[in-house]
Amino acid sequence: MTDITRADGRTPDQLRPVTIERGWSRQAEGSALISFGNTRVLCTASFTNGVPRWMAGKGRGWVTAEYAMLPRSTNERMDRESVKGRVGGRTHEISRLVGRSLRAVVDMKALGENTIVLDCDVLQADGGTRTAAITGAYVALAEALEWGREHRFIGQKATPLIDSVSAVSVGIIDGTPMLDLAYVEDVRAETDMNVVVTGRGLFVEVQGTAEGAPFDRRELNDLLDLALAGTTELAGIQSAALTPAVAEA
Amino acid sequence: MTDITRADGRTPDQLRPVTIERGWSRQAEGSALISFGNTRVLCTASFTNGVPRWMAGKGRGWVTAEYAMLPRSTNERMDRESVKGRVGGRTHEISRLVGRSLRAVVDMKALGENTIVLDCDVLQADGGTRTAAITGAYVALAEALEWGREHRFIGQKATPLIDSVSAVSVGIIDGTPMLDLAYVEDVRAETDMNVVVTGRGLFVEVQGTAEGAPFDRRELNDLLDLALAGTTELAGIQSAALTPAVAEA
Amino acid sequence: MTDITRADGRTPDQLRPVTIERGWSRQAEGSALISFGNTRVLCTASFTNGVPRWMAGKGRGWVTAEYAMLPRSTNERMDRESVKGRVGGRTHEISRLVGRSLRAVVDMKALGENTIVLDCDVLQADGGTRTAAITGAYVALAEALEWGREHRFIGQKATPLIDSVSAVSVGIIDGTPMLDLAYVEDVRAETDMNVVVTGRGLFVEVQGTAEGAPFDRRELNDLLDLALAGTTELAGIQSAALTPAVAEA
Amino acid sequence: MTDITRADGRTPDQLRPVTIERGWSRQAEGSALISFGNTRVLCTASFTNGVPRWMAGKGRGWVTAEYAMLPRSTNERMDRESVKGRVGGRTHEISRLVGRSLRAVVDMKALGENTIVLDCDVLQADGGTRTAAITGAYVALAEALEWGREHRFIGQKATPLIDSVSAVSVGIIDGTPMLDLAYVEDVRAETDMNVVVTGRGLFVEVQGTAEGAPFDRRELNDLLDLALAGTTELAGIQSAALTPAVAEA
Amino acid sequence: MTDITRADGRTPDQLRPVTIERGWSRQAEGSALISFGNTRVLCTASFTNGVPRWMAGKGRGWVTAEYAMLPRSTNERMDRESVKGRVGGRTHEISRLVGRSLRAVVDMKALGENTIVLDCDVLQADGGTRTAAITGAYVALAEALEWGREHRFIGQKATPLIDSVSAVSVGIIDGTPMLDLAYVEDVRAETDMNVVVTGRGLFVEVQGTAEGAPFDRRELNDLLDLALAGTTELAGIQSAALTPAVAEA
Amino acid sequence: MTDITRADGRTPDQLRPVTIERGWSRQAEGSALISFGNTRVLCTASFTNGVPRWMAGKGRGWVTAEYAMLPRSTNERMDRESVKGRVGGRTHEISRLVGRSLRAVVDMKALGENTIVLDCDVLQADGGTRTAAITGAYVALAEALEWGREHRFIGQKATPLIDSVSAVSVGIIDGTPMLDLAYVEDVRAETDMNVVVTGRGLFVEVQGTAEGAPFDRRELNDLLDLALAGTTELAGIQSAALTPAVAEA
Repeated sequence: MTDITRADGRTPDQLRPVTIERGWSRQAEGSALISFGNTRVLCTASFTNGVPRWMAGKGRGWVTAEYAMLPRSTNERMDRESVKGRVGGRTHEISRLVGRSLRAVVDMKALGENTIVLDCDVLQADGGTRTAAITGAYVALAEALEWGREHRFIGQKATPLIDSVSAVSVGIIDGTPMLDLAYVEDVRAETDMNVVVTGRGLFVEVQGTAEGAPFDRRELNDLLDLALAGTTELAGIQSAALTPAVAEA
Repeated sequence: MTDITRADGRTPDQLRPVTIERGWSRQAEGSALISFGNTRVLCTASFTNGVPRWMAGKGRGWVTAEYAMLPRSTNERMDRESVKGRVGGRTHEISRLVGRSLRAVVDMKALGENTIVLDCDVLQADGGTRTAAITGAYVALAEALEWGREHRFIGQKATPLIDSVSAVSVGIIDGTPMLDLAYVEDVRAETDMNVVVTGRGLFVEVQGTAEGAPFDRRELNDLLDLALAGTTELAGIQSAALTPAVAEA
Repeated sequence: MTDITRADGRTPDQLRPVTIERGWSRQAEGSALISFGNTRVLCTASFTNGVPRWMAGKGRGWVTAEYAMLPRSTNERMDRESVKGRVGGRTHEISRLVGRSLRAVVDMKALGENTIVLDCDVLQADGGTRTAAITGAYVALAEALEWGREHRFIGQKATPLIDSVSAVSVGIIDGTPMLDLAYVEDVRAETDMNVVVTGRGLFVEVQGTAEGAPFDRRELNDLLDLALAGTTELAGIQSAALTPAVAEA
Repeated sequence: MTDITRADGRTPDQLRPVTIERGWSRQAEGSALISFGNTRVLCTASFTNGVPRWMAGKGRGWVTAEYAMLPRSTNERMDRESVKGRVGGRTHEISRLVGRSLRAVVDMKALGENTIVLDCDVLQADGGTRTAAITGAYVALAEALEWGREHRFIGQKATPLIDSVSAVSVGIIDGTPMLDLAYVEDVRAETDMNVVVTGRGLFVEVQGTAEGAPFDRRELNDLLDLALAGTTELAGIQSAALTPAVAEA
Repeated sequence: MTDITRADGRTPDQLRPVTIERGWSRQAEGSALISFGNTRVLCTASFTNGVPRWMAGKGRGWVTAEYAMLPRSTNERMDRESVKGRVGGRTHEISRLVGRSLRAVVDMKALGENTIVLDCDVLQADGGTRTAAITGAYVALAEALEWGREHRFIGQKATPLIDSVSAVSVGIIDGTPMLDLAYVEDVRAETDMNVVVTGRGLFVEVQGTAEGAPFDRRELNDLLDLALAGTTELAGIQSAALTPAVAEA
Repeated sequence: MTDITRADGRTPDQLRPVTIERGWSRQAEGSALISFGNTRVLCTASFTNGVPRWMAGKGRGWVTAEYAMLPRSTNERMDRESVKGRVGGRTHEISRLVGRSLRAVVDMKALGENTIVLDCDVLQADGGTRTAAITGAYVALAEALEWGREHRFIGQKATPLIDSVSAVSVGIIDGTPMLDLAYVEDVRAETDMNVVVTGRGLFVEVQGTAEGAPFDRRELNDLLDLALAGTTELAGIQSAALTPAVAEA
């Protein structure tokens, strides 16, 4: 597999350079500007004491997410969804995916009656925006939970984060399974899969789609192998980004 | 696994009774009323000669789908999306899934510049509405393609259908992988997966979500085994439903 | 008048075959699938204990209705109103008509603080969808009221239904007044009238429209005669449909 | 019947004072400010050469109408429909009624490929706004047709207006049929009917609704008698308003 | 400057004929039909005891405004914003301007927990609709405050109106600063400014826009001189309109 | 005036630190990330060959702008306008202001039939977002024009930029006129003015609003003096940002 070189010089099983800039926003309780190569997503976590009315009184918290793209994050300018007057299907779908992925690692009982809204705004898109959003949102979430603990909205002994979570895309291009597809690769992929995995290596979401030809069981297994290796690496980068500040602050 | 009996008396690897009533609609070029147990979905296929303007002149067709639920298809009446003034995220997501699933088995070149819109309206919901929708929409699509051939919009030698496609849900409940979840099972599932498979046994979509605890590789494999057995059975039921009329008409 | 034979073989004063299938929906408190010839409307009645906030505390109930057409209930597929983002004028108008018609036979004091929402979804349209909707919704309403009584939301001695109600269309085609127009007749009618009548033969709504030439007093009277005969027959069909189950259940 | 005196001193069969101020708008091709007592509606007719694309090339014109109320035309201020983001059911229904009523007296072939849009904006509401709108819109329409003829968009020998049209409300209050209901009467009426009649005395629309108790055949006849007398009087007032300017201009 | 004569015969520093007809609406607590030449705006003030929930309990009132144009107030008919389903940017902007302008002369503490909504509906547009709206809305507001005092919603000694307010447009046309631009002047103006001034001669809003070439400090000063002279005159007309009725009623 | 020290240590006539990072976006034809202190706005310019249909064939170009805030650019998270389904009044107003300001310095004839859309997305808000947006958008615009010239969409001798443009806010706080208000100052300002000025020192927009007490002529003059000094300084910063790359590229 490793003889093949990709357009940007990577091997098939190599992530793009990943950077996470924590605390990018002065206002949000948690924030991270994450890059997967040229894909850049600004993730903020807004912590509010209290939950929506329909959830109140049960001692449980709530975590939700919204994803959006700036109009010129893409090669061709897109119309704003606010101007069109409605949120598109793809945006809805990704917002729901990000929310579910993060809820999978939060103990709502330990969070208590607090709400965290994650906003993932794509500043620049080059493939993998949803996986970058999930990976960055986790860091913003962790910061916001730390903020909540410091401000005594979360009990000092409570551990609302039960695991970490990250995501990566994988796909088959010209018959070769590849990790973390850039945009030029994504449009050519026969099969495209987004995989969300916890720090302990368990699956939260597996979303595989045959864009071209349907895929067989062996291909599915190869893609899952690649994805697990990629998310293991991402978990390490998240951990490094979070270690000093959250731990010591 | 087979010692466990489900609420409706099924074994874990058993589908609910599946019925497909073809030609239910007098107006549509293709139609099927499909039942997966108490889940009933009316699928119509509208065949139009010509394609949207942005696709014209390329000699290729287009297939798309819309999914919706009647307001009282569910236990609690839901507000109509038309009255709310917008299509919800879940509806969008499923419409897109149905469309992608059917496009996976259509040769757009062989279809020629024709458009087929599949409408999947859930009359009664008891879990698995999206998988029933895909399975029924395939039958409506096959009818509509036959109609297009009879009306000479499709070449007599063209074979736009390159395979059949069906879908089923699988999930883990109390640690046991189960096939074709009814609503009461779906809400209790720790992991929920929708799998779309062609008649030849290839994957079109694999969408697994950890609703409760994340799942491991072995559980994923067990679920895929169940799903492949289920879709094989569904392909047979589709084939039986289509055999007399389309073949002989 | 009776020498004229219509396209489907009926005499001018003849209804199409009318069937009412009660209890079609497993979820709704009341339901009926009604057919006026090829027009098929699924009517469900959703019973909720309580009334909207602005009505609370007055000891009175509320009955309302929503009408809609499936996108391919018609010869040409229509865009969904949910996708267009708004309910059209015709839909609004018919929903209001159905609601008013049913409220005319309900004693809101006897209903008590309960709400019934009638959903009339046209599965197949061949003229007279609004009159079929009213006629079928009455049956669903009666079932739901019985359900409310059984579940003790309505007093055992209360009689919220003060009369039955049904509706039929009449029109003048080539100078001949005709009953219960099918679609091919409806588009040719010079005058089109929908008449809603109670079981006792009193008018609830009379909506006559000159589609072609204006009409005179004598024509109006002929149409009303036809409509009263038609609704008397419909009242009998409703009564037959309701007799066993509601009475004995 | 004539012994009963109404709140404003009228007999049951008496119209409110009706005034029609033609040419109120400097911009519109036709206009009339009409009053039925305290109900005041500004009607403008906008004449455009050409028709919507879907009608082009058939040599026929189009007439349509839009009705709306100013937010403080009523006793309680209403929210603007523009601010709510959608046109309500009642507004839709009345706009459609006004359009149909005027189309009934226009020969679309004689109009030629021209479009006339009638805007009926209620400045002050005191019952009967839709009937005042129809009656005033006819005057605006006649002016606009004259304008079209003067500007040679309509043939000099063409007679697009085949009749005049006016409308009035009638209702039963405390058992007495009454003509042209003011708001305080309208809210108390057991039955409420809007009748649209041509200058020759033919019906264009008959819309009767039982607001309280259903009505019988004799009551319906009494109401129609009243309405025909009222619209005869309105036709005279329209004619007087139109006589000098349109005839001599 | 005074040698130049404008299309309508005015000198550059001359207002169009201004008329204010108070109490035009029978329903509203305050109202004025104002004309600046052919521009006619119906202004109503709706007085409600109480404030929006988010303001309650602070002993302060609220004043807000909505501006709109009738579809055929202009030379070319415009689509209704209700039909388009959204309020346009210009409408929003002017509504906000009118609201701010009037709040600038109201002592919210003296108003007490009462709300006044000003609706400014343009019946006929010929330039300067926003300045006529502000000038007329002030008169409607003053009437409504008097109504509130009479009905004891405002304390008898409270003086919620701390000043009067009016507005005028000014602009530079062919190098000459001119007062109160009519539509034909407005479209030709290089610079266009709307100035809102209190009765004491203080600025509430200065909104100058270079439509053609940017303007310098001296031009700005000339325009402000003209505007102050114009608003002084308007304040006199407002005062005359209000003197008898409000003082003596 | 200079004795007063502001919360962030500035003198009343001092700008916050201004930085302009050009070419921030890899996709857009022009871009700038601008900071006015903690206010950060990402400005992109999208260059398209061609103009909207209604402008075609006149040999003139078009420049327009859209402004928006990220949901957590502010202290409290705001709901997204896309989710609310409509663009708010303030957003509309600022988008229009930015567009007008930039059009004031573009020669549309020299631009030719090309369209430039400026997107100004506020990543972090601390007062002055609209003035930062205008100032940054100018830099993005200049870059995009250079791109258009390089790609031969603009004539090599054409000079579409006829001047530069920048903007700054000024206000009166506790009686003292101050330059470039931060958020904490803005909410306390009695008068708030946004001034848009060209590089040559001419006014494009002057928008002054009395938030508290109305202001007099002298205060207006003081504010204009401050604004002109501020925009002179901003023009220098813009020039420095543009000098190397555009000139030499």
